[in-house]
Amino acid sequence: MTSAMADFDLPDAMRLRLPTRPVVGNSEFRAAMSAIGSSVHVVTARRGDERIGRTVTSLMSLAAEPPTLLVSIDIMSRLADLIAKTGGFSVAALADNQQAIADAFAGRVKAHERFNLGEWSAWPSGHPMLLGTAAAMDCEVIGSIETGTHVLFAGAIVDAETTTSRTPLIWQRHGYRQLADTE
Amino acid sequence: MTSAMADFDLPDAMRLRLPTRPVVGNSEFRAAMSAIGSSVHVVTARRGDERIGRTVTSLMSLAAEPPTLLVSIDIMSRLADLIAKTGGFSVAALADNQQAIADAFAGRVKAHERFNLGEWSAWPSGHPMLLGTAAAMDCEVIGSIETGTHVLFAGAIVDAETTTSRTPLIWQRHGYRQLADTE
Repeated sequence: MTSAMADFDLPDAMRLRLPTRPVVGNSEFRAAMSAIGSSVHVVTARRGDERIGRTVTSLMSLAAEPPTLLVSIDIMSRLADLIAKTGGFSVAALADNQQAIADAFAGRVKAHERFNLGEWSAWPSGHPMLLGTAAAMDCEVIGSIETGTHVLFAGAIVDAETTTSRTPLIWQRHGYRQLADTE
Repeated sequence: MTSAMADFDLPDAMRLRLPTRPVVGNSEFRAAMSAIGSSVHVVTARRGDERIGRTVTSLMSLAAEPPTLLVSIDIMSRLADLIAKTGGFSVAALADNQQAIADAFAGRVKAHERFNLGEWSAWPSGHPMLLGTAAAMDCEVIGSIETGTHVLFAGAIVDAETTTSRTPLIWQRHGYRQLADTE
């Protein structure tokens, strides 16, 4: 990642110690994580003619001032590379009728064909903007941390579109779920 | 936090830069974040006779090896202090019939009365274990990062209980939501 970060500040690092106690097995970990419900997002970036995106659920609010979110991206991925190079990324919080887009960006469709699904525009920054989402945000990277396998990018939100007419797509127990209607 | 961290390694820090572009206003930020659906968790810790807990939605999977999650806790809170002092915490991923517990630990009930709600046991570590959840985990802190307003704790999962008979409580658009039944 060193050369990829050259256009930008070097990331911080979180030094993870080895646990002193035995940890749970992989199937127990997966079972516990799958019990948790999370919104499904597509994180995207663009540099020149290259657009890339990936389906993620590891995204959370980090701070209100400045408005900042945190997203975890595979450190070996081209997406992490492009985010580091451009210093920005965009987020599409998928609506519950956008499962096909979630599947495509999770790997079911080849990287260069993924943007054929759904209707895409662009933020003023040039990063991709998906239409028809529950919410969409354009972010400027204001900090990053490498954890060994992932990079955590802190993104200040420079543009946002939110609708209240669509409900978010949820991932839980290894499948897509919808929110129940509220009474 | 310096003395609180004395029993333990010093946390890493994420240097957040100021954004170079204007960011969205607080109401736009809140609207975008509220469109996202998140599981509702109660994060707890215990030291001696003191038990403390807080409702959080900022929690995500960090790594599979070792199985690790990441949770964001207000840096000024007694909970962050206790987690740093003990080097551990526990997580209850609330089931959708545990809204009263979510409300209590979000601040509706005074700190010392919160554990009167729900049925509580303890993990072998001594950290509180809530029964009747969608999933419950006990974590050993293997890394931490201060971001200014929050501490991100990386917790390796040393114990976990998961049920498939309960669905998680979701927070979205400023209210509790349930997952729709799958067909």
